[in-house]
Amino acid sequence: MAEPKVCEDLVRERKKCTFDVTELTNLIDGGAQATEERHYVENLVINTEGMITKDEVPEEYLSHKERYEYAIKKACILYEVLKEYAAKHNTMDAFKPTNKYRVTFGMVKDISPFMLHMGMFVPTILNQSDPEQLAEWLPQAMSMGILGTYAQTELGHGTFLRGLETTATYDPATEEFVLHTPTLTAYKWWPGGLAHTANHCIVVAQLYSKGECYGVHPFFVQIRDTETHMPLPGVKVGEIGPKMGFQTANNGFLGFDHYRIPRRSMLMKNAQVLKDGTYVKSKNDKLTYGTMVFVRVLIVTDVAYELSRAATIAVRYSAVRHQSQPKPGEPEPQILDYVTQQHKLFIGVATSHVFRVTGYWLWDSYSKVIADVGKGNMDQLPELHALACCLKAVCSRDATARVEEFRLACGGHGFMASSNLPIINGIVSATITYEGEYTVLMLQTARFLVKAWKQATLGNAMTPTVSYLLRFFNNDRVHWETSPEGIVSGFLAIAAGKTKAACESLQEYEKSGMDYEDAWNSASVQLVNASEAHCRAILCEVSWRELSRLAAQSSPSLGKVLLQMGELYLIYWALEKRGDLLLYSTITRADIAKLQARYEVLLGLLRPNAVGLVDAFDIRDEILNSTLGAYDGRVYERLMEEALKSPLNAEPVNQSFHKYLKPLMMKAKL
Amino acid sequence: MAEPKVCEDLVRERKKCTFDVTELTNLIDGGAQATEERHYVENLVINTEGMITKDEVPEEYLSHKERYEYAIKKACILYEVLKEYAAKHNTMDAFKPTNKYRVTFGMVKDISPFMLHMGMFVPTILNQSDPEQLAEWLPQAMSMGILGTYAQTELGHGTFLRGLETTATYDPATEEFVLHTPTLTAYKWWPGGLAHTANHCIVVAQLYSKGECYGVHPFFVQIRDTETHMPLPGVKVGEIGPKMGFQTANNGFLGFDHYRIPRRSMLMKNAQVLKDGTYVKSKNDKLTYGTMVFVRVLIVTDVAYELSRAATIAVRYSAVRHQSQPKPGEPEPQILDYVTQQHKLFIGVATSHVFRVTGYWLWDSYSKVIADVGKGNMDQLPELHALACCLKAVCSRDATARVEEFRLACGGHGFMASSNLPIINGIVSATITYEGEYTVLMLQTARFLVKAWKQATLGNAMTPTVSYLLRFFNNDRVHWETSPEGIVSGFLAIAAGKTKAACESLQEYEKSGMDYEDAWNSASVQLVNASEAHCRAILCEVSWRELSRLAAQSSPSLGKVLLQMGELYLIYWALEKRGDLLLYSTITRADIAKLQARYEVLLGLLRPNAVGLVDAFDIRDEILNSTLGAYDGRVYERLMEEALKSPLNAEPVNQSFHKYLKPLMMKAKL
Repeated sequence: MAEPKVCEDLVRERKKCTFDVTELTNLIDGGAQATEERHYVENLVINTEGMITKDEVPEEYLSHKERYEYAIKKACILYEVLKEYAAKHNTMDAFKPTNKYRVTFGMVKDISPFMLHMGMFVPTILNQSDPEQLAEWLPQAMSMGILGTYAQTELGHGTFLRGLETTATYDPATEEFVLHTPTLTAYKWWPGGLAHTANHCIVVAQLYSKGECYGVHPFFVQIRDTETHMPLPGVKVGEIGPKMGFQTANNGFLGFDHYRIPRRSMLMKNAQVLKDGTYVKSKNDKLTYGTMVFVRVLIVTDVAYELSRAATIAVRYSAVRHQSQPKPGEPEPQILDYVTQQHKLFIGVATSHVFRVTGYWLWDSYSKVIADVGKGNMDQLPELHALACCLKAVCSRDATARVEEFRLACGGHGFMASSNLPIINGIVSATITYEGEYTVLMLQTARFLVKAWKQATLGNAMTPTVSYLLRFFNNDRVHWETSPEGIVSGFLAIAAGKTKAACESLQEYEKSGMDYEDAWNSASVQLVNASEAHCRAILCEVSWRELSRLAAQSSPSLGKVLLQMGELYLIYWALEKRGDLLLYSTITRADIAKLQARYEVLLGLLRPNAVGLVDAFDIRDEILNSTLGAYDGRVYERLMEEALKSPLNAEPVNQSFHKYLKPLMMKAKL
Repeated sequence: MAEPKVCEDLVRERKKCTFDVTELTNLIDGGAQATEERHYVENLVINTEGMITKDEVPEEYLSHKERYEYAIKKACILYEVLKEYAAKHNTMDAFKPTNKYRVTFGMVKDISPFMLHMGMFVPTILNQSDPEQLAEWLPQAMSMGILGTYAQTELGHGTFLRGLETTATYDPATEEFVLHTPTLTAYKWWPGGLAHTANHCIVVAQLYSKGECYGVHPFFVQIRDTETHMPLPGVKVGEIGPKMGFQTANNGFLGFDHYRIPRRSMLMKNAQVLKDGTYVKSKNDKLTYGTMVFVRVLIVTDVAYELSRAATIAVRYSAVRHQSQPKPGEPEPQILDYVTQQHKLFIGVATSHVFRVTGYWLWDSYSKVIADVGKGNMDQLPELHALACCLKAVCSRDATARVEEFRLACGGHGFMASSNLPIINGIVSATITYEGEYTVLMLQTARFLVKAWKQATLGNAMTPTVSYLLRFFNNDRVHWETSPEGIVSGFLAIAAGKTKAACESLQEYEKSGMDYEDAWNSASVQLVNASEAHCRAILCEVSWRELSRLAAQSSPSLGKVLLQMGELYLIYWALEKRGDLLLYSTITRADIAKLQARYEVLLGLLRPNAVGLVDAFDIRDEILNSTLGAYDGRVYERLMEEALKSPLNAEPVNQSFHKYLKPLMMKAKL
């Protein structure tokens, strides 16, 4: 089959590119071999029968129920392929923040009903089972012999774990736990795949033994018959209904009516309940942090990836779309040539790189800390936890804003489902809430910062990510210098200054007679601001260091572009936060004007490489799933082709005309 | 039927309220009589058979096609009721920015396929037909004897009107226009109701006569047979597919193949084509601005209304939802008691009031200017146009951000379709793009500001909305005063300062050798910033003045609350823009700390009235359409009731288990 012709605009753009696109792709993937492996997996999946079916009705036209059935079909085909591949290779790759397995999400347009099987069910078994449990459960879970999910959140209880109402009461007579849902608000609510897909799940419940409550613990629970898939007696399970996104995630609810499970269903790597009902405490409470922190770390690289998808769509569309005629007689320019459009797009491209390199750095920190924890050293855990909290929160929120900006940059067409931007928007904006709500996480980091500040006031040694507090302890107006390093210093000074201000405000409220928690609440807007400043400083510092390191290892032409993106990110945020820089550095109005001018220069420098930069994300059309973003740029042809697939367009006159419209018109004529 | 019990939390909240809720409702509606009339219309609609059908499957579960059919059914029932009502009263009310007719949108959950009939088809006929045409077309259109829409945007052409490709070529031999779609990108694309609903539409096309092109003009065109609804020969029409919102708007595409219409199909109030093909120019080009400006004015009050819907949902939910346990042993507090939550919610409530009063003020300005235009005086038109551009752009964008914040404030449940927040989000975020894309409109206002600045440099007299430029011409650092009036002055100084900076930047780029349009493009990020500052200053100044005026006319208890909301809006934005205030006023770090403290005090003052404030929006449950926001606060019961309506929940086991899941599991066991 002949390749469809690539549109002229994109051919021209690709000729302009000043760096080797493949070199950047390899850098993003983590080496040429990783790119090759990714291509291999992608080909495997895409060429499997049933995976891409050209003429089927696009899923957006289907009913809610049909969409679920469609997603299950695709997810099953996909998993068989990946299982086969995984059997030959190292399966655990699926749990690293690389692009290779992202195909699993990309191929089922929206979220797969199996997402929590691999994303939460398997990791929880891995991290919290004892060796005997691991040997029994893991092989079944990994091979999809059982289908699982993770049920924690309840209808009336989210981020506040201690508030969960589901109970697991130990009965020593039968050596069983009795799971029970005492109220409507105690129903499990939200877990993906729970509704009609999973037959097992991890249930988080309040553990009672010998009349004592020992807090929440995880249990491995079968909820449906593996032969008939019927809910087991005592189990009430179903789906929670349509959402803003995640239409195919099959989110479910789950209630128990005195449902009995064996004692050994409790995951016993840490805490245990003995046969007689004796509760054996975990050696360290913090051990259960593991999965939570792990998922938050992954979200940072996940949103970086989703940003790269949205960037590819918006930048290619902006190269193909022409609009207005600023100069009489000349043709309408590509909208990519408008500086306001570059302002919307390039920060998004840069942000994808900033989040990816920061996410990988966070992943490395996570791996080191978890290795230490394995050796019994928990010292770094609070810092890692504080870091993962604010980075998950800020990156998810920023990514959502950037995806929305990309969508708006595509004008009306960005509103079309066929652009795929609405689905990406749904996927990314959900990350602000799940796995720890934004404000709750920011306040977790704030607690760490307040403690750190107290250490600083005592002159004590600080852990690495907050050592800057000491540096700005006595001088909160840093000397301004217009350079990337100067901007990083400025952001550290802002973070220190805001932490100090929030701590002082907290003290003032306390002095006015409030107890600590009321004072905390009163100062909480400022505390969230301090966390945000801390996180922004980390993003600036880490990404500039990492991009500089990668630039030094790259060819000069690519290195230059990497530094331009790093600098663009720094200057964009310096301008956004100029109010804070005016408060916490010696920056002047003239310096700000200089930054604005440099920002405009950087947009111009990145302009010729815009399409090359998104080509380097190397996202295949089948995974991008967008009428606006395909490699060949045939935007208008694809929009019309997709529209013509609408079942409404299969008939010239819809039945509702005869039933409703005609009678309405007739009455007007009477 | 007994009223269901209102949940305890809301009962308690309502007792706390310090003002008369009905007084505020009347103020919002524009008087007690207006409230009564609105209630009358709402009752009429809600009690009509077929309008509210309790046990039908909620529309989100339906297929795309079924949703359209559902929407047509509801829209037809609705219009018959309203027609009957309108026949007895003054119909033109539907074109004023009041809440009375908002029921037409609220009752069909998403956008009605008739929206553009009343919103664009009828107003265009009203504003651009000559008397004879008006007499022929208007009665048919008003009575729904014909179903219309407005087709302007094309697949390849949006905001840039001159770029439209559809042609209307006059043929004097038959005294007809020949409508033609020369390319794929010339297809009309987006008009609501165009796909399968309308049988007539206003088509905007390039007018050719005697070999000359006279630019775009509107034509009244029949596209479907009124008896059979079949597309007429030469007309290609269909739907464009699913979107991020507007699922039931029935947006369509339309192409013509040398399609002939009578000469008198051209709307001839302004320009005309005579029988022999002679083109008669409009007396004033600016006359056609009318409808465009009108729709933009309405968008400001529309988004204020949508904000009030989202606010009602989020505030009531926050009063019912309990979370965390800051103090050991005490019950979980209402999330409304968290200051971070108040920070998310109250600015949204205040913004709804600010946009409404500013929108009404804009509506008055519009009415005056249009009356003047009727008398041949066009002087105020450029200022009105500049005002409507930036207010539409900024209010639509701000409203979207606030709705999203409300959604996030409801945590996971805000992501549920049954909360109705996702649909409101879709409705509001579309306003950023339609009827003039955000950046394009901001740059229109910037052109006006640049001209005004030049007048200021010449010392010439200024029109009212930009006279502040003179005030800050020689002193761009205004003396800071911590008061509402001081903040307004600060914002005017920012607007003047940014306009000046953008103009200077523009000049610098020109001096460097660029032509004016390249210089304009290079400075455009700063020009948009200047427009935004101008608009923010207008919003602050007008809303503070209007709310103060309304407060003076109200009872002291309500007056106090109105001023608190006005002040909250000012301080919120002063804090957001503190960087600009530091640059353009003498504000100090201590002043900013004082503002922050006052902001926290205001949140506390508004807290007891939170539920009363949203009750005063007086949005009936049937129009609010939300599991989270109903008057009785039975949040969890409604969430579960809605979920149980899912067709997926009608069967314990979905067919896909036998077809796909079981085979997948079996393979694992081999």
